[in-house]
Amino acid sequence: MPHPALDTGFAAIPDTLLARYRQVRHASERICAPLQTEDYVIQSMPDVSPPKWHLAHVSWFFEAFLLTPFLKGYRTPDRAYDTLFNSYYQTHGVPFPRAARGLLARPTVEQVYAYRAHIDRAMEALLGDPPAGAGDEIARRVELGLQHEQQHQELLLMDIKHIFVQNPLDPVYRRDLQVSAPGTEAPLRWQAYTSGVRSIGHDGDAFAFDCERPRHRVFVDDFRLASRPVNNGEYLAFIEDGGYRRSDLWLADGWALINQQGWQAPLYWRRDGDAWYEFTLGGLRPLDRLAPVCHLSFYEAEAYATWAGARLPSEAEWEVAAQEATARDLALGDTAGRDTPARGTSARGHFVEADCLQPMAGHAPARGPGQLFGDVWEWTGSAYRPYPGFRPLEGSLGEYNGKFMSGQMVLRGGCCVTPADHIRATYRNFFYPAMRWQFSGLRLAQEA
Amino acid sequence: MPHPALDTGFAAIPDTLLARYRQVRHASERICAPLQTEDYVIQSMPDVSPPKWHLAHVSWFFEAFLLTPFLKGYRTPDRAYDTLFNSYYQTHGVPFPRAARGLLARPTVEQVYAYRAHIDRAMEALLGDPPAGAGDEIARRVELGLQHEQQHQELLLMDIKHIFVQNPLDPVYRRDLQVSAPGTEAPLRWQAYTSGVRSIGHDGDAFAFDCERPRHRVFVDDFRLASRPVNNGEYLAFIEDGGYRRSDLWLADGWALINQQGWQAPLYWRRDGDAWYEFTLGGLRPLDRLAPVCHLSFYEAEAYATWAGARLPSEAEWEVAAQEATARDLALGDTAGRDTPARGTSARGHFVEADCLQPMAGHAPARGPGQLFGDVWEWTGSAYRPYPGFRPLEGSLGEYNGKFMSGQMVLRGGCCVTPADHIRATYRNFFYPAMRWQFSGLRLAQEA
Amino acid sequence: MPHPALDTGFAAIPDTLLARYRQVRHASERICAPLQTEDYVIQSMPDVSPPKWHLAHVSWFFEAFLLTPFLKGYRTPDRAYDTLFNSYYQTHGVPFPRAARGLLARPTVEQVYAYRAHIDRAMEALLGDPPAGAGDEIARRVELGLQHEQQHQELLLMDIKHIFVQNPLDPVYRRDLQVSAPGTEAPLRWQAYTSGVRSIGHDGDAFAFDCERPRHRVFVDDFRLASRPVNNGEYLAFIEDGGYRRSDLWLADGWALINQQGWQAPLYWRRDGDAWYEFTLGGLRPLDRLAPVCHLSFYEAEAYATWAGARLPSEAEWEVAAQEATARDLALGDTAGRDTPARGTSARGHFVEADCLQPMAGHAPARGPGQLFGDVWEWTGSAYRPYPGFRPLEGSLGEYNGKFMSGQMVLRGGCCVTPADHIRATYRNFFYPAMRWQFSGLRLAQEA
Amino acid sequence: MPHPALDTGFAAIPDTLLARYRQVRHASERICAPLQTEDYVIQSMPDVSPPKWHLAHVSWFFEAFLLTPFLKGYRTPDRAYDTLFNSYYQTHGVPFPRAARGLLARPTVEQVYAYRAHIDRAMEALLGDPPAGAGDEIARRVELGLQHEQQHQELLLMDIKHIFVQNPLDPVYRRDLQVSAPGTEAPLRWQAYTSGVRSIGHDGDAFAFDCERPRHRVFVDDFRLASRPVNNGEYLAFIEDGGYRRSDLWLADGWALINQQGWQAPLYWRRDGDAWYEFTLGGLRPLDRLAPVCHLSFYEAEAYATWAGARLPSEAEWEVAAQEATARDLALGDTAGRDTPARGTSARGHFVEADCLQPMAGHAPARGPGQLFGDVWEWTGSAYRPYPGFRPLEGSLGEYNGKFMSGQMVLRGGCCVTPADHIRATYRNFFYPAMRWQFSGLRLAQEA
Repeated sequence: MPHPALDTGFAAIPDTLLARYRQVRHASERICAPLQTEDYVIQSMPDVSPPKWHLAHVSWFFEAFLLTPFLKGYRTPDRAYDTLFNSYYQTHGVPFPRAARGLLARPTVEQVYAYRAHIDRAMEALLGDPPAGAGDEIARRVELGLQHEQQHQELLLMDIKHIFVQNPLDPVYRRDLQVSAPGTEAPLRWQAYTSGVRSIGHDGDAFAFDCERPRHRVFVDDFRLASRPVNNGEYLAFIEDGGYRRSDLWLADGWALINQQGWQAPLYWRRDGDAWYEFTLGGLRPLDRLAPVCHLSFYEAEAYATWAGARLPSEAEWEVAAQEATARDLALGDTAGRDTPARGTSARGHFVEADCLQPMAGHAPARGPGQLFGDVWEWTGSAYRPYPGFRPLEGSLGEYNGKFMSGQMVLRGGCCVTPADHIRATYRNFFYPAMRWQFSGLRLAQEA
Repeated sequence: MPHPALDTGFAAIPDTLLARYRQVRHASERICAPLQTEDYVIQSMPDVSPPKWHLAHVSWFFEAFLLTPFLKGYRTPDRAYDTLFNSYYQTHGVPFPRAARGLLARPTVEQVYAYRAHIDRAMEALLGDPPAGAGDEIARRVELGLQHEQQHQELLLMDIKHIFVQNPLDPVYRRDLQVSAPGTEAPLRWQAYTSGVRSIGHDGDAFAFDCERPRHRVFVDDFRLASRPVNNGEYLAFIEDGGYRRSDLWLADGWALINQQGWQAPLYWRRDGDAWYEFTLGGLRPLDRLAPVCHLSFYEAEAYATWAGARLPSEAEWEVAAQEATARDLALGDTAGRDTPARGTSARGHFVEADCLQPMAGHAPARGPGQLFGDVWEWTGSAYRPYPGFRPLEGSLGEYNGKFMSGQMVLRGGCCVTPADHIRATYRNFFYPAMRWQFSGLRLAQEA
Repeated sequence: MPHPALDTGFAAIPDTLLARYRQVRHASERICAPLQTEDYVIQSMPDVSPPKWHLAHVSWFFEAFLLTPFLKGYRTPDRAYDTLFNSYYQTHGVPFPRAARGLLARPTVEQVYAYRAHIDRAMEALLGDPPAGAGDEIARRVELGLQHEQQHQELLLMDIKHIFVQNPLDPVYRRDLQVSAPGTEAPLRWQAYTSGVRSIGHDGDAFAFDCERPRHRVFVDDFRLASRPVNNGEYLAFIEDGGYRRSDLWLADGWALINQQGWQAPLYWRRDGDAWYEFTLGGLRPLDRLAPVCHLSFYEAEAYATWAGARLPSEAEWEVAAQEATARDLALGDTAGRDTPARGTSARGHFVEADCLQPMAGHAPARGPGQLFGDVWEWTGSAYRPYPGFRPLEGSLGEYNGKFMSGQMVLRGGCCVTPADHIRATYRNFFYPAMRWQFSGLRLAQEA
Repeated sequence: MPHPALDTGFAAIPDTLLARYRQVRHASERICAPLQTEDYVIQSMPDVSPPKWHLAHVSWFFEAFLLTPFLKGYRTPDRAYDTLFNSYYQTHGVPFPRAARGLLARPTVEQVYAYRAHIDRAMEALLGDPPAGAGDEIARRVELGLQHEQQHQELLLMDIKHIFVQNPLDPVYRRDLQVSAPGTEAPLRWQAYTSGVRSIGHDGDAFAFDCERPRHRVFVDDFRLASRPVNNGEYLAFIEDGGYRRSDLWLADGWALINQQGWQAPLYWRRDGDAWYEFTLGGLRPLDRLAPVCHLSFYEAEAYATWAGARLPSEAEWEVAAQEATARDLALGDTAGRDTPARGTSARGHFVEADCLQPMAGHAPARGPGQLFGDVWEWTGSAYRPYPGFRPLEGSLGEYNGKFMSGQMVLRGGCCVTPADHIRATYRNFFYPAMRWQFSGLRLAQEA
C-alpha cells in the first residue's frame, strides 16, 4: 500500500511551492523582528526553546531531510549543527540535550540568520532543479518542512510570551497589536448532534500529518456542544466559587499538581486586589471577561467542565461538529467578515494573521457552534493515540508524530497564534495534561 | 436518573452476602498467613503499601462507608485510623501521605488484626439487622467493599513480591505453590473479527464498577487478534535482537525511561551469563519460555508490538473478542478442565485460585483466542478515560475510579493473582504506562 | 611508629574486658526491650537506621574485624550479612545502600537476636582463648567494638525517637522514665579564661578514637564561657523575638534551609496556641523552660548565639574549660550527687544511666561552668577536621572517622542518651550543620 | 571600638581613589570586550552568573551603598534594578532568585552598559563633591566597591570559561593570549618551618576584608611545605594509578560525589585516546604537564594529597610561609622579572595582568616556596570560619563575608585571573568543597 501523500503528478516543483516556501520562511523572521538579540538566547523552561534555536532548527530540518539527501554537493556551514539543531530524531543522530538549549550562546543570532540564508539559497537551487525522479518526494518533504516551520512559528510566539513573562521588567513584545473591539456577551447555546457512524481523519491528497490518517469510522452517540468556548468571566466565576480548592472537581493528578505548584488561576493571570490582569504579547492588560479563557492545563479544563456540570468533547465529537460547520459555511457561501479562511478548507477564525496574538470575544453565529477554529486550542477528552491503521512516515521522519502517542491529550481547532492555512478540521494537536503555556482553552459538551 | 446499581428487591440482607463477606475477608488473611511480622511493615516504593496497611485500609472502607453511617452506636477503636487508613478520599478527610505509609510501626500487626475482628463483628451486627429502608444501599456498599477488598488481595500479592525482591536474601513467600506442567509450544494463530457497531461496557444488575458503565456503542473495524499472549521466549528474542537499544521501537517517554532507569528486561528477570531467571512468589526460577511474559510496562508492551509488526488491541477490540469467546464457551458447555469460571460469567482462566501466583503456558483452544482471562493482565492501546455517559458514584465513593482517568492505560482480563469471581469481560484495570509491578503482559493485534 | 593504642602488656584478655563486653552488649538489648517487632523495621529518614539494623551491624563489626580474622573456623550464619550489615566500609566490601535499610524485612528481629547470640558465643570463645601473639590487637579491637556499640546505643535512642515522632498515634517509648525535679532558674554567669598555649587531644594508653589524637598545642586567646547551656526559656525568647524570620541572624545556608523546610522551632517542639510542648521518649510533655534547649541544628545554634551577642566556643576553648573543670572536681573530691562519673575520667553529668533520656535543668555549680558533660551535645564553632599529625587506624578501620572530615561541625560533652563511660574531655562528636535529630544544644562563649 | 578601616584623615576624596575607580571599572569592560552579545546572557549553572549580570551587579553595589545614601537627588534608571541586581543582601531587599539570572533577557547588554555609564557619572559627581563629614566613610565604601568589582572580574573570567565549555562548537574567548614558554621540570623541594606562636590575619589601615581581621595569634607546629604547587604531570600519575577508583583515598562526601557525577579528571580536561587536552580561555590545548594542576575540587585536592603521602596545609601554615616569603623578597629587593608585585605588598606571581589566563609552570626560586601567589588558588585544609574576635561590617555590608562561614574551605594566594593588586598574604578566598570552576589547585604540606 503506497503511503498516503501528495501525488503532484509531475516531476517539476510547482512554482507555488517555491512561492510558499519563501512566504513561510519569511513569516518566521517577521515574528522575530521585534526581538532584541538577548531575547533570542533564553530558555525559560525545558519545554521552551530559545528563539534562535527555533530559527536554526527549522532550517536544519530542510538540511537534514532535503539538502543532504537530494542536493548534490551540498555542504553545511558547520557539521556540529547536525547535532545542535536536531530536536529529537534519535534515528538520525544524537540530539543536543533539549534542556540545555539555553546554554548555547553560539552560533550567534547573526550566524543563525546566515545559516537560514545559506539554507534558503540551497533550497532555491534544489527546487529549481530537482534530481530526476525525486520531484514528488521532494515536494512532499518541502510541504512537510513548511508545515513544520509553521508549527514552530506558533511555538515561537508561545515561547516568546513565556520568556518575557519571567522578567520583572514586564517587557512588551509588540505595542502595535490589533485589539479586539469590545464584544457583547454571547449567551452560551447548545447545539445538538445525533448519533451514528461517522468518519473522521484525513484522506485525499492534500497535506496532512501522518497522525491525522487514515480516515476511519467511529460511532458517535447523541451529544450537545456549546456554541462558543468558555470565557474568562465564566472561568473567574469558577475561581470565585473555590474551584481551585475543591478536590471533588479535579482529577487526582491535577489536584496534586495545583497544590504542589500553588496554581490558583490560569497561567499569565495576575491578581491585584480585586482586579485581574493578563500578561499578553502586547503587555499587561485588564482581563477581558468576554474573551475565551486561555492558557489552561487539561486538568483545569476538566475541572471547570465538571464544575459546570458538563464535560469535554471527544476529538471525534469535535471533528464531527467541525465538519458540519465547514459544510454549512460552504453551503452558505459565508466567507465575508474579517476572519481568515484556512487554506484548502473553509475553516475560519482569529488566527495569527488577525495580528491580535490573544484570543478575542467572538461574534455569535446565527446557528451552530462558533469559534471552533482559531482563538484557543480546545482541549478534548481524548488521549493522543494512533488511529486504527495509523502508519508513521518512513525513516527518521516517522519520529515526527508517532512516538509522542502516550500521556498526551488532543487539542483541536488552532488558536490566535496559529497560521490560518496550517489548520483544518482533522488537525490533531497534543500536549501533556499539565502544560499550559500553549494558547489552550475549552468548549463544553454534554450527553444529549 | 437513579444510579445503575444492584436492586436486590428486598430489605433483608441475603445470607449469601454475609457468607460472601466472610469468605472474602478470610481470603485476605490467608494471603498474609505466610508473612513474618516484619514483612507487614515494609513499603518498598511509594506505589506499594505495607501489607498491614492493606489489611487495615480495606477494613476502614467498611467502617467509613457502612458502619459509621449505618450502624447505630458504632465506635472506632481509634479515631486516628480514619486518617491513617484513608487511602485517597479527599472529600472524606485528609489522608495520611501515601509515601509515608512505611513509616508507621503502629498500629502493630496484632492491633491491625484486632481492628479487622472489630470491624467484622460490627459488620455481622449490621448485616444481621440492617436499619429499615437501608438494606439495598447497604447491600450495594457491602458488595463494593468486597470487590474493593479483592482488588487489595491482588495488590497484596503484587506488593509482597515487590517487597521480597528488594532483599538480597531472596526470601520465598511460599514454597508450596502449584507449578505448571511443562507446556508445549502453542503456535500463535490470528483470529479475525469483522467490522461493525458493537456494544461494550456493563449493564444489568450484576455488580460492576462505575467506570465499566454505561454500556455503549462503538464502531470496531476489521481486526485480528493473537490466539494467546506473547510468551517469555518471544520476548527474549526481542531482547536479543537489541530491542532495548533501538530507539525506533519506542515511544519517546518510554525511551527516556528505559535509559534513565537502565531497564534491559522485564521487572523480576535476572541474567546470569547466558541463563535467565525470574523472581517469583515461589522463589527464583529459571525462566519458563512458554509462559506469558509478565511485569512489562506499557512502553515495553508497545515496543514489543512494534518490533513484531503488530500493535496492541484497543479495549473495545479486546472486549468484543472476550464477549464472543464467552458466548462460545457457554454454547459449547465447555466448563471442564481445572480453569476456574469467573463468578456470574463464564470467564475462565488461571486465577489466584489456581494457586500458582505466576502466569502459566496455556493449552491452545481449538479455535478463537485463549487465555483472555487470567495469567496476565493485557495492556491495551486505550487510555483510561470515561465512557460516554459515565457517572461516578455519589459522594466520596465517587473518588473510587473517576479521578484517576488521566495518564493511565487500560488493561484487561485479570491475572494469576486475581480472584476468579472478581473479573469479567467488561472489567477495566488501569496503570500508568511506566508501572510494571503488576502482573502485566500483552497480546498482539493487527489490522485485518 | 606504633599506632597509639591500648598496650595491655599481656597476652591473655583481661577478665574485665569480657565482663565489659557482656555489659555493653546487654545494654543494647535493654534499650530495645520496650520495642514492638514492627518498631525495629522502620527507617524514618536516610540518616536513621532501623533498630534491628543497629543490633545486627554492631554484631557484624565484631564478626568482620575480630571473628573472621582471629577465630579459627568461625562461620557466619549468612554470608549476605557481610553486605547487609556493613555500614560504610568501602574497602571491606560493597555496603548495602544506606537509604534502603528500611526495605529489609529479613532477617527478622528474631533472627537478628539469634545473630547476636551467635556472635556472643564466638566472641566468648575468642576472648577465652585468643591466638598466641594476637591478644593485644584483639583487646584493642574489642575495646573499639564496644565503643562502637555504645555509639550505636545513642543512635538507637535518637532513631527510636525519630521513628516514633512520625506516627500520628504519638507512641510512647517508655512510660517509666525518670523525670527531673523542677529546677530553679540558674542565672547565666560567665567564666573567664586567660590566653596561652594549651594542649588538647588525647594521649596515653586509655582508649580514644583516632580523631582525638594526637595531643597537640594550640593557642587559645582570652575568652569567657557561659556557666550552663542555653535553656528552652531563653530559646523561646529568641523565637518570640522573630529569630526565625530575621535573615541577619543566620548563616546563608541556614537561612535557605529554614525557609525551604519551614522550620520555626527546634525539632520535636509543637505549638498549641500559646502553649509549647516537646515530644520526648516518654511522650508529649509541656516544654520545660529551665532545661537545656535540645535538637538544634548548627545553624540554629549559631543564629541564637548571634542574637544573644555571643558566639559558639571553639572546640579548643571547650576542651580547655573541660580540662580545668575536671581537674577542679578531682581536687575537690566532688563526687557526690546522682551524677555519673564518666569512666576513666571524672567527667560527670546526666547521661543515659540517669534514665531520663531528656536534658534536665542542672544545679548551678559554685564556680566554673556546669553541665559541660551530659544533657546536650554542645555545638562548637569548629569544623571537624584532622588534628595536626592525625593518623587514621590501619586498614578498613581507618574509615571509622577520618573520611568524614569534611562539611561537619564538632560537638562536645555527650548528652542524656550517651553512656557515661563513653565520654571524655577530648571526645569529638560531629554532625552536618543541618542535622538536629541528635540531642544537640549550645553553650555561649564571648571574647574576653 | 571603631571598626578597623581606612582612616584617610581628610574629607576630600583623594585623586588616586578616583583614578583607581576609573581603572577598575574600565578593567571589567575590557574583560567583556571579546564577548558577543549572546555570551552575556548565559547562565551555565546556578553558581555562574551571566556576564551582563556581573556588569550590572557591581554597578548596583555603588548605587545601593554609595549613591542612594550619599548623593543627593540621585535617581536610578529603573527601580526594578534594585531587585534584579541585588545578589544576596537579604537585609537590603528581596534579591531576584540567583538560579534564574539566566532567564533575564532585559535589560539588554546595551542597557547594562548605559547603566554603568549612569553610575560612573554619578560616582564622579559624588567623589568630586562628597557631603561634608562623609568623606571617610565614602572612601572606605568606594574601596570596598572596587575590591568587590575586582572579585567579579575574576568571576567573569571563571564564568565565561564555564559558559564557553558548554558549547560543542568550542568557542575561543581570546586567540591572542600570552602563552608560557616551555618550562623545565622544577623538582619538588620541601621547605621546613619551626613551631611557635605566630600571628596571622590583617591589621593596619590598608584595605582588607572583614573576614581577614583581626590579626591574632595561633600556634603552628613544625611543618614542611612544598616548593611549588602540584603540576598536571603529577596529577596525571594519580589518575593513572587509579586515583579516581580507590575509595580509600577519598573523603566520604567526595567519593559519593565523583561516583554520582562520573568525575574522572579535573574539570576542563578531555581525553582523546592516550592524549589529554585542556579547555582554556584560549581554546583547547594539549595538557601542559609542568603547569600547576587547576580546576580541582577540595575533594580531589585532598585525595591527591593522601595518595602522595602528604596533606593540605592549614591556612595558618600557608600564611606563615607567605609572610616569610614576602619578607625575604623585600629584604632581597627581588622585584625583577615579569611577575607583578601585588599592590601594597610584595606579593608577586602570575596574575591576570600576565594575560595568560591559565596557570603556568613557574621558575623555581633559589630557596623557599615559589608560586605562593598567582597561577592557582591553593586549597587549604582549613574550613572558612570567623577568626577569634571577628566583627562583620555594619548594616547590609555585614552580609558580604560573614554569612558564608559554614560548609566552605579556605583557598589562598590568588590565581592567573586575579588582579595583582587585589591579593595579599592574609586574603581568604572560600568555596564549597565540591566546586571546581574556579582556578583552584593545591600545594602539599607534611608534618616535619
